[in-house]
Amino acid sequence: MFIRNCWYVIAWDHEVPADGLFTRTVIGDPVLLFRRADGTIVALEDRCCHRHAPLSRGRKEGECVRCGYHGLKFDARGACIEAPGLDTLPAKARVRTYPVAVKNKWVFVWMGNPALAGTESLPDNFSCDHQDWNYLPGYLHYGTNYLLIADNLLDFSHLSYVHEKTLGGSTAIAQARPTIEKVPYGIRVTRRVPNVPPPGYYRRMGSFDGNLDRWFIYDFLLPGTLLMHSGGRPTGDAPGDMSRAVRLHSCQTLTPETESTTHYFFQQSHLVAQGDASIAQIIYDALVVAFHEDREMITAQARNIALDPQAPMVPLAMDAALAQFRRLVTEAIAAERTTAEATQATDPAPA
Amino acid sequence: MFIRNCWYVIAWDHEVPADGLFTRTVIGDPVLLFRRADGTIVALEDRCCHRHAPLSRGRKEGECVRCGYHGLKFDARGACIEAPGLDTLPAKARVRTYPVAVKNKWVFVWMGNPALAGTESLPDNFSCDHQDWNYLPGYLHYGTNYLLIADNLLDFSHLSYVHEKTLGGSTAIAQARPTIEKVPYGIRVTRRVPNVPPPGYYRRMGSFDGNLDRWFIYDFLLPGTLLMHSGGRPTGDAPGDMSRAVRLHSCQTLTPETESTTHYFFQQSHLVAQGDASIAQIIYDALVVAFHEDREMITAQARNIALDPQAPMVPLAMDAALAQFRRLVTEAIAAERTTAEATQATDPAPA
Amino acid sequence: MFIRNCWYVIAWDHEVPADGLFTRTVIGDPVLLFRRADGTIVALEDRCCHRHAPLSRGRKEGECVRCGYHGLKFDARGACIEAPGLDTLPAKARVRTYPVAVKNKWVFVWMGNPALAGTESLPDNFSCDHQDWNYLPGYLHYGTNYLLIADNLLDFSHLSYVHEKTLGGSTAIAQARPTIEKVPYGIRVTRRVPNVPPPGYYRRMGSFDGNLDRWFIYDFLLPGTLLMHSGGRPTGDAPGDMSRAVRLHSCQTLTPETESTTHYFFQQSHLVAQGDASIAQIIYDALVVAFHEDREMITAQARNIALDPQAPMVPLAMDAALAQFRRLVTEAIAAERTTAEATQATDPAPA
Repeated sequence: MFIRNCWYVIAWDHEVPADGLFTRTVIGDPVLLFRRADGTIVALEDRCCHRHAPLSRGRKEGECVRCGYHGLKFDARGACIEAPGLDTLPAKARVRTYPVAVKNKWVFVWMGNPALAGTESLPDNFSCDHQDWNYLPGYLHYGTNYLLIADNLLDFSHLSYVHEKTLGGSTAIAQARPTIEKVPYGIRVTRRVPNVPPPGYYRRMGSFDGNLDRWFIYDFLLPGTLLMHSGGRPTGDAPGDMSRAVRLHSCQTLTPETESTTHYFFQQSHLVAQGDASIAQIIYDALVVAFHEDREMITAQARNIALDPQAPMVPLAMDAALAQFRRLVTEAIAAERTTAEATQATDPAPA
Repeated sequence: MFIRNCWYVIAWDHEVPADGLFTRTVIGDPVLLFRRADGTIVALEDRCCHRHAPLSRGRKEGECVRCGYHGLKFDARGACIEAPGLDTLPAKARVRTYPVAVKNKWVFVWMGNPALAGTESLPDNFSCDHQDWNYLPGYLHYGTNYLLIADNLLDFSHLSYVHEKTLGGSTAIAQARPTIEKVPYGIRVTRRVPNVPPPGYYRRMGSFDGNLDRWFIYDFLLPGTLLMHSGGRPTGDAPGDMSRAVRLHSCQTLTPETESTTHYFFQQSHLVAQGDASIAQIIYDALVVAFHEDREMITAQARNIALDPQAPMVPLAMDAALAQFRRLVTEAIAAERTTAEATQATDPAPA
Repeated sequence: MFIRNCWYVIAWDHEVPADGLFTRTVIGDPVLLFRRADGTIVALEDRCCHRHAPLSRGRKEGECVRCGYHGLKFDARGACIEAPGLDTLPAKARVRTYPVAVKNKWVFVWMGNPALAGTESLPDNFSCDHQDWNYLPGYLHYGTNYLLIADNLLDFSHLSYVHEKTLGGSTAIAQARPTIEKVPYGIRVTRRVPNVPPPGYYRRMGSFDGNLDRWFIYDFLLPGTLLMHSGGRPTGDAPGDMSRAVRLHSCQTLTPETESTTHYFFQQSHLVAQGDASIAQIIYDALVVAFHEDREMITAQARNIALDPQAPMVPLAMDAALAQFRRLVTEAIAAERTTAEATQATDPAPA
């Protein structure tokens, strides 16, 4: 079960070719992307209505796609406009289209009722496309359900252990108590960690003799997006003095592929003023190492859960954010189901 | 669910060794083949009645097979005739036998009631063993249900797209409208494609300056055999003038291994008079390339179907043949079930 | 379904490091092993009570283990004694412990009710740690249920066929009729095979001109342990004259990992007086070859069973031992269930 009435990131903008076909499965639906002549992106169900072959194995013809199995041709609205040897086409000969939004290099698809696809719920991933910020884009595939990864991102106490030698570097991160607030579409987690050593790559972005006060302030938004301001500044610097601070912004998002697999898009931006392109590479490399640490742990956790899916977990205070987020997901799915049932119940009966 | 009362091709004749054991699973039953001294083939259930070890992991002893696990020996009628350390053997100590037929290099097994195993339903795969025809035998394993492959073979419009650069070469093939007739055990599909360029390997079998009139006339017979006359002759040659025609005959058959895997045996024969052994190799190589194209498409289609098994397909005119054939399969399975139930109902009650 | 109130071998003693963590899954439970300072072994559920991460991916801290995900620390009694950022811990914050016994280099865990974990049911694997005996320890992983492997070990008629060229060497082994007796926790199988050629590695342990009288006398004990005296002496030597006999002792045990996978620990000891270290290596190598023969056969058998799980087997006299042992397993599981239900039924109702 997934939320459908929401935007999922399906690709980085650069992944969709100028003149070709791109496919990725989102919440169990195979989705085809291609570009119109003006560069805007079309999203169609990547499953020919005829015999369910993936349209992505066919070819792009202008602003249409032709199925590579039996040659049906679909336009950008999903209508079948040609089938070899047929003079007329049944009205049902069409594939589903999905609303698309592109915002700051992220390509989103709306998997639910198109009438509800407002752009106000798009996340503010500004640092993915901003002159003051620089980053390298990342993608990782997971062999687990996305909620286990959301859990991970919603409890940064794991930085002290999973990433002890990479992003973390201090048990103080785990000991710090975050505050959690409700924000539109999700929750905000604020974790301040005073007086800790800087992680390795910080040293490339500033000259630090001693400890830093670090902060991690992020929104975690439905369906699974993390937007984070983080950084550190020398412990003891005057309040409000950011002159020696390292500042970072990170945009990460989870898109379920199936119940047991997940797409993970990520970046962590640094201020252009604080480092050249080599810094972006260093940060990217550090993230890749760290996110593989996460994936190994979460995959092992998933194996343990599969051994005994009914075994209870013991909730702890550090689970507050993940528990709240899981509740938001559950409520959103339940609300969609209620709406769907209400809609069916009030449909006028056929005369 | 599979049809049982029919002949399935289990092997090419040359695959069964003169003095050894051969195994292949047919509609979920592991089947052991070996040859008697006179070369005739025996088919036994490849599952020792004792503890279900495959007999094919044992050894042939004369016209018998000895299980390699605990040494039970079975004769060619499936009776256990020796068990080490036992003086008497229970009557139940036997494995099932399957009627075998060998016709034109194809080895068939009958998986249902042996009393019904008449040879009149064997397909006329004449070109597999005929002095005027030459070919190389092919085999491919599929990771999908066999009906998806039958669908493929029953709609040659796919030649224009899946095999655009190999067997096809013209969208005219897809545009041509085939005729479909009922024949014993199946249907006949006739597709004539006038005035199209010859595919590459045709050029090796004749000298063609211009286009050809091509034809594909095939019977598709239960449980899954294609027998096809195809060819082409220069467009404009006088009616009935076959002097410059390329003529081919193809025998292909699908044997389900399990619900999700399939054996595919195939050949395409050319007239000995139209080419030497190098032509057979060229045709074989072209088929292998093309049939891998099919397998990639069908495997991708099967993945899409698995993502949403309930999603409806949109039937089109080009599906007439596959829809008819699927109906024949469904009817045959239903008829077997009805017969089985009727037989049970009329069995005399125990006194 | 597995017996729980019994000792399962989880490891060879040398597999558990002096200062680190070791994990293996037993009857579906992931189990963590580590050593206290005095070298004794602790067994904990290898699943953090918090979010089910494997504790084995964390680190040992003194006689405690710290989870590598969020840093919970557990003592050797399974109690969570620290959680970063928490002042108090819920009483439920603990993981299960398992009674451990180490006997003659085998490490056992008791998977059921700890109150029942008496050591009287530990098998007498004396030759795993005895000055007069020498061996090399073996381990093999199986992709099948453990009972198929127990079946194999309970019917040595397979030696004549599966191990024809390795351990067996004569069909006389299969033809010999074993006697079967009930012993505490299992059954005893005695198989004497007079006047047969020695297997290859026997020749390294004595000088034999002619045939031997061989014997195999083993107890097969719940949950899956084989303890065997075997050997051979020149046919015709005076009764009771063991001066030229080869004597071996073997300890083998099956530990289910899951319903479809199994751990197999094995050794076969020779008398120190009958050979040096090179003999231990020769015997070990012979066992490894032979046990791979078993694994190939049993894996093929399991595939056949999976193709038709309902197909009946035909019981033969040679199955007496395996049938008795399977009955013991079934009875033990049923008895545990009855006890569990009785315990529940007599629990005082809450006031």
